[in-house]
Amino acid sequence: MEDIKTKEYVVGIDVGGQTTKIGIVNRRGEIVKQSVISSMFGTGEAGLFEDAVCEAIKSLLAQAGLSAEQIQGIGMGAPDANYYEGTIHDAVNLAWAKGITVPIASDIEKRINIPVTVTNDANAAAIGEMTYGAARGMKDFIMITLGTGVGSGIVVNGSLVYGHDGFAGELGHTKIIRNGGRQCGCGQCGCLEAYTSAIGIARTAREWLEMSDEPSQLRNLSEITSKDIFVAAENGDKLAVKIFEYTGRLLGESFANFIPFSAPEAIVLFGGLARAWKYIEKPILDAMNSNVVFLWKNKVRLIHSTLPESDAAILGASALAW
Amino acid sequence: MEDIKTKEYVVGIDVGGQTTKIGIVNRRGEIVKQSVISSMFGTGEAGLFEDAVCEAIKSLLAQAGLSAEQIQGIGMGAPDANYYEGTIHDAVNLAWAKGITVPIASDIEKRINIPVTVTNDANAAAIGEMTYGAARGMKDFIMITLGTGVGSGIVVNGSLVYGHDGFAGELGHTKIIRNGGRQCGCGQCGCLEAYTSAIGIARTAREWLEMSDEPSQLRNLSEITSKDIFVAAENGDKLAVKIFEYTGRLLGESFANFIPFSAPEAIVLFGGLARAWKYIEKPILDAMNSNVVFLWKNKVRLIHSTLPESDAAILGASALAW
Repeated sequence: MEDIKTKEYVVGIDVGGQTTKIGIVNRRGEIVKQSVISSMFGTGEAGLFEDAVCEAIKSLLAQAGLSAEQIQGIGMGAPDANYYEGTIHDAVNLAWAKGITVPIASDIEKRINIPVTVTNDANAAAIGEMTYGAARGMKDFIMITLGTGVGSGIVVNGSLVYGHDGFAGELGHTKIIRNGGRQCGCGQCGCLEAYTSAIGIARTAREWLEMSDEPSQLRNLSEITSKDIFVAAENGDKLAVKIFEYTGRLLGESFANFIPFSAPEAIVLFGGLARAWKYIEKPILDAMNSNVVFLWKNKVRLIHSTLPESDAAILGASALAW
Repeated sequence: MEDIKTKEYVVGIDVGGQTTKIGIVNRRGEIVKQSVISSMFGTGEAGLFEDAVCEAIKSLLAQAGLSAEQIQGIGMGAPDANYYEGTIHDAVNLAWAKGITVPIASDIEKRINIPVTVTNDANAAAIGEMTYGAARGMKDFIMITLGTGVGSGIVVNGSLVYGHDGFAGELGHTKIIRNGGRQCGCGQCGCLEAYTSAIGIARTAREWLEMSDEPSQLRNLSEITSKDIFVAAENGDKLAVKIFEYTGRLLGESFANFIPFSAPEAIVLFGGLARAWKYIEKPILDAMNSNVVFLWKNKVRLIHSTLPESDAAILGASALAW
């Protein structure tokens, strides 16, 4: 009884390709303290990353006036994380976890003496969205996270799909371009992620600028990010708008192939690219509904996360820890 | 107590595009009597089909010396069947159910006064395979049925995926050819079913014979069926073997896109084309493993049903009725 009363908080951690967001969450699902650290540690530096995570947690606890004993557990969402094993396995977007298996749950537990549960970052986002966000009350939906990579969390009959080995939900590595598709970080060619991640959309911009003489504000930039393309689109740049339309079409064509699998009520988009909603919504819907088999034509909702991005990921990860 | 003792049998019905198989099954999973009727009733003739099914059940009961009171229930697997609604909805391969919704569960219940449960034919096969066949003990697998159409039954964590609307598992209508793909019976182009169903593989043969002058025993036939192609391959016909290789490659490429969804332990093939196992196994495995993301390379088993085809479908459907 006393034990339950004293453990009133959990920690939610969202490991992204560039930054890791850490928050202390109370039983009402409120983030009471949060901070951001870099995820960009190098090859062989998994231990340094884990040290930094633990330092950040301790610092947040101090700021909140809490002790480690008051924390029920730590939930972590990370790319290529395995729920069954507590590991990050060969994460192509994290240099310190590329080509190796990092036993991150036990590593952090050893350092800070709080139990750690790990899942795929997109699964964590799906849990967050189902518990607090746009998918509240839904039993069947597909979460697509559009960030540095493209991830997915699939909810079937109210439960996350983990699969035989704990890695289920890697829809970013289904092939959307069959022949002559772009090289993806995973080693395959033509993956959805190679086109519709933040990096993918920047590649589209660079390729299109080289292939045509179409005027564009993007030509003035030495390096192009997905944010630059959004800013250009907002400034009326036609090429930038076309890049979003192309990206949306590829997403919609992919979604048309995902829907027959689990017949979801909705597809929920989350992450950086979801911010360009007004440019991608219609292309996605058009491609999805013109490619999906008649059973689901104009029947599956396309929605975007209503939670602040960092909050959803932290809250979703934290929900693992209760 | 007495009620349980007297209801020692169920009826399993497998509705295929051409024939419907009906069996009386006991509690040990043995088919004690079975028969086959035609499924090929025409537009507007759903009622006639239902009459024929009920007549066949009554005849089997009489042959087995059983009364309707001894039957616990009827389980039916059918194309485009909806588990939640008890209907067959716009089945493109059944003329009497094309473009309409047939409330087949309640229609048959009214005629014969035994409760009826309906599911997708591929879901029924998956239940049969999980209960009695090659997928015994598996919690995560994908069943692919290769018959008149291409169906699928997806098992996640030991349960069939029905989805939000009850229609989940229509992987035959995911697109494998994006541009200029063949017209499929569903109205879309480029669906897996348009290439790898019995009808699809016969279309491949006709197209290839027209496109090339390559000698083939198939040239002598006025109409080509998938069985003819199998016989030709067995006779050493190179074109026939190449047709199976092409079909296998398309299946393998598709499977590489299905695996990241649910991380299955195995993909189980079932139905007519699975008979050509020795011609399609290697092309499927090669295409699957060279296209799937590294997490599942050479890790997902490809197996074929070990149950006699008609038995698995009847047994799977019957398992719904207990």
